[in-house]
Amino acid sequence: MFPDVATPALLVDVDVLAANARRMSDRASMLGVALRPHAKTVKSPELLSGVVRRGAIGLTVSTLGEIRTLRDITRDILYAVPVAHGKADPILNALGDAPIRLTVVLDDEANLSGVPDDQRVDVSIEVDSDGERGGIAPDAPGLVDLAERIASRHRLRGVMTHAGGSYLVDRGHVPQVAARERDAVVTAALRLTGAGHRIDMVSVGSTPTMAVVDDLGGVTEMRPGVYLFGDLSMVALGACGVDDLAVSTLATVIGRAHAGDVSIIDAGWSSLSQDGGVKALDGRTGLGVVVVEGGRLDSSDLVVTGASQEHGLVTKVGGGATGLSTGSRVRVYPNHACATAEMHSEMTLVSSGTTVGRVARPRAW
Amino acid sequence: MFPDVATPALLVDVDVLAANARRMSDRASMLGVALRPHAKTVKSPELLSGVVRRGAIGLTVSTLGEIRTLRDITRDILYAVPVAHGKADPILNALGDAPIRLTVVLDDEANLSGVPDDQRVDVSIEVDSDGERGGIAPDAPGLVDLAERIASRHRLRGVMTHAGGSYLVDRGHVPQVAARERDAVVTAALRLTGAGHRIDMVSVGSTPTMAVVDDLGGVTEMRPGVYLFGDLSMVALGACGVDDLAVSTLATVIGRAHAGDVSIIDAGWSSLSQDGGVKALDGRTGLGVVVVEGGRLDSSDLVVTGASQEHGLVTKVGGGATGLSTGSRVRVYPNHACATAEMHSEMTLVSSGTTVGRVARPRAW
Repeated sequence: MFPDVATPALLVDVDVLAANARRMSDRASMLGVALRPHAKTVKSPELLSGVVRRGAIGLTVSTLGEIRTLRDITRDILYAVPVAHGKADPILNALGDAPIRLTVVLDDEANLSGVPDDQRVDVSIEVDSDGERGGIAPDAPGLVDLAERIASRHRLRGVMTHAGGSYLVDRGHVPQVAARERDAVVTAALRLTGAGHRIDMVSVGSTPTMAVVDDLGGVTEMRPGVYLFGDLSMVALGACGVDDLAVSTLATVIGRAHAGDVSIIDAGWSSLSQDGGVKALDGRTGLGVVVVEGGRLDSSDLVVTGASQEHGLVTKVGGGATGLSTGSRVRVYPNHACATAEMHSEMTLVSSGTTVGRVARPRAW
Repeated sequence: MFPDVATPALLVDVDVLAANARRMSDRASMLGVALRPHAKTVKSPELLSGVVRRGAIGLTVSTLGEIRTLRDITRDILYAVPVAHGKADPILNALGDAPIRLTVVLDDEANLSGVPDDQRVDVSIEVDSDGERGGIAPDAPGLVDLAERIASRHRLRGVMTHAGGSYLVDRGHVPQVAARERDAVVTAALRLTGAGHRIDMVSVGSTPTMAVVDDLGGVTEMRPGVYLFGDLSMVALGACGVDDLAVSTLATVIGRAHAGDVSIIDAGWSSLSQDGGVKALDGRTGLGVVVVEGGRLDSSDLVVTGASQEHGLVTKVGGGATGLSTGSRVRVYPNHACATAEMHSEMTLVSSGTTVGRVARPRAW
């Protein structure tokens, strides 16, 4: 299996990636909103430029490093992590001379000093839709006042939220989270337009909610990210099928342990990550599901049940020998593609079982 | 706090690092064994060359990428992950023309095809000391036969083991694990010398066991790794004190959540890792302990209790406001320095509260 690739290595199936990109772009069109994919998962400008060309209005990022590496492939970036005191100069450095429109977010007046004074920089307000992270509540008394303060010094572009809570529920409750996410930003946007502000951006995120939501009335754009790669968590939440997983870690079986019932692969947490996936997976996929050459993900009973830095332990669900022979190769499908990809600075591109290229995945803040 | 450093960033206190290096080197001398530090934690050739110069006989590595980046600072490398079929050529590529002695390890005849045919490459046998990972049992009938097979094609250098089990016990049981680790390799070595083999390497690993062991009779070298950085797990296992932690993640407070009781920092799992540390920590340090400017690690009651890719959630133990103001900076001390360091491709060197440099931490297999 991919004998020309040294293990461990992150494989990206470019055909599956393209199909995932197309499917979400179609959903956005159907729902009448623009698509602004979150770049934190894929990171590679080579892979993302194709995604941008095929119908995205811009990109979402969560680090200044991503602004630096992606500022040449799009003209419209949303930096979706709140700015804070001390961030203005680093942001300007990341922008360089790029002729770009950057939108930064904040949820508190105290963060205003983190907004660069630059014609290219707009501000959106982060709205809380589930109590799981930051954001101002859509009905908070201070919302309109915050908008005034922003508008007195910068261009207020709109409101955004991220339904992080969609990762914490079971599959049946995702539509409910999606409705709350939409309601939160739309409520906030209506209050601000009511107060006389022009609101151009009403932005929601999260792959699970975007995969199931059927009404985005009042919303202008969606920001899913992991949909491009897909993972076992997204399968568990109903956001994709097992054939939609574009990434896996290629590994070599290097030995056995525990009287032969446990196989050892050369992929530890340094290449798999330590992410156990969403609550809905309930830990049953360990640190990833192992697929042998010619095997299928949905019929595999091999799971990575433990890992040290460069060793992964593969166990057969229910006990017994794994059947893996030393020197053979396997693919490990990730619980959380963002976390697994984050362990890799390089990605091997494959198509129909053949290596077709290699791209950098720049990791820097 | 370090206003010239953009957050998040991995800080390495070079004075603490030097003291940690010295202390373990002294222990090795006192115990009458050589020191072969594991390079997987620190990775930087700049930092490790000082460690090598100050009394190490060579380095341990766990990836071919580490061989590639460290082959110029030492002449003797042990590659401590079992070789397997398909690895011989990648190993030769990693060696390049370096005038080096490389020792590879294996525990099964099936792995022999992974050993490069090269004058520079020796083989040691991996011995199992705790049933937690790979290795052949020291009393296994096949041990002597395996040695014969190796010696018929390559130079057999000796035996090695890693007491991974030292991470799974509580502090009081580490000495027991250390004794078992030593007994395992010494038993194996004696069987092999009894069978007529010359055994030059009898190698044990693990920072926790090396920090407490008081007798290494029959052992030739130790391979601790994380001792150079130190972490909360090593404190919990008694392998170092709170003042011996050389690394922390510098972060900026970017906001609040949950009615103000949770603070948000710009260090998520992409800079902290998702490592909860050893069993002995019992999860009570979350994803790391937070220390404010002028504060002390051992009196802090702030813990990172949750994280997404670029957001960390800081909670006060026992409840109540964190007292952190937006825009201020904190240091997060890691549960597991290997895992946290692995998230960083660059390290900021500090000394007495001042930035003194920046080095790359090359991450590649």
